[in-house]
Amino acid sequence: MSSKPSIPKGTRDFSTGEMLKREYIFESIKNIFRLYGYQPIETPAIENLTTLLGKYGEEGDKLLFRILNSGDFLSAVDDKDLTNRELGKLSSMICEKGLRYDLTVPFARYVVQHRDEIVFPFKRYQIQPVWRADRPQKGRYREFFQCDVDVIGSDSLLNEYELLRIIDDVFRKFRISTVIKINNRKVLAGIASYIGGSDRIIDITVALDKFDKIGAENVNSELRSKGLSDNSISGLQPFLQLTGNFSEKLNVLSELLSGSAVGLKGIEELKTLFELIQGSLFNSRIELDLTLARGLNYYTGAIIEVKSSDVGIGSICGGGRYDNLTGVFGMEGVSGVGISFGADRIYDVLNQLNLFDESKASSTQVMIVNFGDNETLYALKILDLLHGLNIRSELYPDSAKLKKQISYADSKKIPYVIIAGEDEITNDNLTIKIMSTGEQKKLKLKELPSFVENEIGRKNE
Amino acid sequence: MSSKPSIPKGTRDFSTGEMLKREYIFESIKNIFRLYGYQPIETPAIENLTTLLGKYGEEGDKLLFRILNSGDFLSAVDDKDLTNRELGKLSSMICEKGLRYDLTVPFARYVVQHRDEIVFPFKRYQIQPVWRADRPQKGRYREFFQCDVDVIGSDSLLNEYELLRIIDDVFRKFRISTVIKINNRKVLAGIASYIGGSDRIIDITVALDKFDKIGAENVNSELRSKGLSDNSISGLQPFLQLTGNFSEKLNVLSELLSGSAVGLKGIEELKTLFELIQGSLFNSRIELDLTLARGLNYYTGAIIEVKSSDVGIGSICGGGRYDNLTGVFGMEGVSGVGISFGADRIYDVLNQLNLFDESKASSTQVMIVNFGDNETLYALKILDLLHGLNIRSELYPDSAKLKKQISYADSKKIPYVIIAGEDEITNDNLTIKIMSTGEQKKLKLKELPSFVENEIGRKNE
Repeated sequence: MSSKPSIPKGTRDFSTGEMLKREYIFESIKNIFRLYGYQPIETPAIENLTTLLGKYGEEGDKLLFRILNSGDFLSAVDDKDLTNRELGKLSSMICEKGLRYDLTVPFARYVVQHRDEIVFPFKRYQIQPVWRADRPQKGRYREFFQCDVDVIGSDSLLNEYELLRIIDDVFRKFRISTVIKINNRKVLAGIASYIGGSDRIIDITVALDKFDKIGAENVNSELRSKGLSDNSISGLQPFLQLTGNFSEKLNVLSELLSGSAVGLKGIEELKTLFELIQGSLFNSRIELDLTLARGLNYYTGAIIEVKSSDVGIGSICGGGRYDNLTGVFGMEGVSGVGISFGADRIYDVLNQLNLFDESKASSTQVMIVNFGDNETLYALKILDLLHGLNIRSELYPDSAKLKKQISYADSKKIPYVIIAGEDEITNDNLTIKIMSTGEQKKLKLKELPSFVENEIGRKNE
Repeated sequence: MSSKPSIPKGTRDFSTGEMLKREYIFESIKNIFRLYGYQPIETPAIENLTTLLGKYGEEGDKLLFRILNSGDFLSAVDDKDLTNRELGKLSSMICEKGLRYDLTVPFARYVVQHRDEIVFPFKRYQIQPVWRADRPQKGRYREFFQCDVDVIGSDSLLNEYELLRIIDDVFRKFRISTVIKINNRKVLAGIASYIGGSDRIIDITVALDKFDKIGAENVNSELRSKGLSDNSISGLQPFLQLTGNFSEKLNVLSELLSGSAVGLKGIEELKTLFELIQGSLFNSRIELDLTLARGLNYYTGAIIEVKSSDVGIGSICGGGRYDNLTGVFGMEGVSGVGISFGADRIYDVLNQLNLFDESKASSTQVMIVNFGDNETLYALKILDLLHGLNIRSELYPDSAKLKKQISYADSKKIPYVIIAGEDEITNDNLTIKIMSTGEQKKLKLKELPSFVENEIGRKNE
């Protein structure tokens, strides 16, 4: 036999056990998105490279999977272009299309392309795979799913609030304890201007973002190495040392940033959001975290990040407000806010905390043993009856040894096996084997529906 | 504003209306697959080209989308290779991976790669997109979904029978009248040998396959032009003119092919299948069609094809028995049988026959009008209550003019709108507008749950 075939690095096959768990995650998230009035769209895996290039920074461009043009892909390339080996230029000449890198840019493209059909505010969700030519490593894949939910065409803070409710509902459904961290891009701008480094906001927030990992002292020396003055750095300390609950922090911030218009606007937004949060019951702990700085060149208002309280695996959901998502495609002034759930990490958390309901991991509920041609029509009659009752069931297709058939049921985690051989049929006396206990029950064919309803149907809920 | 962005030829965006209809199709098919004990797997969109190349014929190889290697894709290519412009050779040097072309080859690869974990018979389904660099045309896309269901590792004809039951269940669920055409590859081999053209089986079946479109006379002249003798062609006529029902046709066939061992084996298989079919109730008309010849170099037993009785759109489902799917990856002797549903064509048939249930096309069931900050907390209370009752509902995020909000509800096909302004709140007298009739009902907040249960919940079933 030749060597086993394989799949590309960083991609995965999902076998049935994993699939059922993944579907549970996607279905749960989807149902909650829908409960809040969001509707699905899907965009193609393949986009024009003109849509994708330049949207993810220089590094992102390198991580795009490009698709070789069909037919004579060299027709527009002369020998000099070939032998010059300018990879960027050449790849643009031989590839017009690429694989989707995230769901955000295709969504922006979608909104601009379909703007005449869309009714705003537009509440959409999208659950699809994306591809990145990243170096594969533990927990980082080249093909993975994103679950995005966004509302665009409304700048009301009710949208931010609603997304927090969705986060809370999703993780309550999964029974994962979470901390939701909130910040505001305008507050970060206010801090930068307060400590005299408006033009250094990127350096400042990049350093702040590491606070959790490296601590205040290292953040300060990083900033010093970037050329921030001692004055600026000491001005930053009150923000790093901010303590207390959400509203206490807001009060201190209001004083510190009283001179920054943009900072005060950010605080105002956080206050409104906080009031809405207080009017409702949240399962998650909600924290104001000034060191939260993700997606800086992108977000313009709220920034949101969610972590599991019990498993240290990084962010399992995140997002924020962006005021000009569609501007890059020529449609200005459309504000939106959205979050993205990390299905792969949620899967890992559920697995690690043993929170998957294993009883749902089986697909088939009943297997009927195959005794051969003479018993087949009778077995098919039982099967029809079970299918009519919406019980997932199957007849073993071959009249193999009983042991082999039972072992098949066992490995497929099928909870009930019906044994109807010649004797059982003649005497109308079926045997039902309950696989978890090994117990066997006897009943007549006409008693099967009520047995199913009581025993199996109930567990089917 | 710059020109609108666009997507590659042959790809599609799915907007919310289409998505809900598509999900209905996929969910219905999936539920029936599961009812019969099939379990899902998924494979990556990206496969190694060594897995894909040579599996779909020369023409298929050309239709594969190839992915440019990341990093320095020219590192292994010298100038001579470049300027020689041998496209096939060059593309293999600069591309190691390609997009999945169908679900069958990746499934075969999956089975061989995971053979030590799989319990046979392995009943799996797979619903995923595939990509082909075909010339786009009406109804033919470069990215489209396939819905495959297969059982491998069992040669029992009960599997063929089960797939026919699945076909019947799926199209009964969709309320599409269908004809299921059945043939057997071994019978075709028998016919070829009977008319003295065993080595001409490909020419013969390619011509037979056109019988429906071009008629007997043209089939005969095509065969003549391919060099078949007059004797062979006249020998073929009884098969072309075969009439009667399934069992009458089988009887005539048995006589005609009495000298062909392989032909008789095929007839035997058809007879067994027919007996199973007769023991059960089918909604679809089931026909034995000797001119059915799809996928010849691939199928080895039963061949199945399904057409809509009411819409002329070609096959909406098809498949058959293959005895050596995994042989190409070095694992011999694994027999399987499977079918594939054409979701795009089923979508078109449902649309054309107006069989989509439009009442399910709305996602949100209730919208609450936004009257501004003072009423917001009250509106959120109603919203919480509705979400708790599992009613898909949303608060309009901005305090826009009532007319604008109602028009939003209208275009989103939201059936109920709750109006709770200052007066309504003060007097505990909500207004519920029923959008289909324009009728307005008044009720107290505490009456809302029972209203929802009676009016909305019921339609939610």
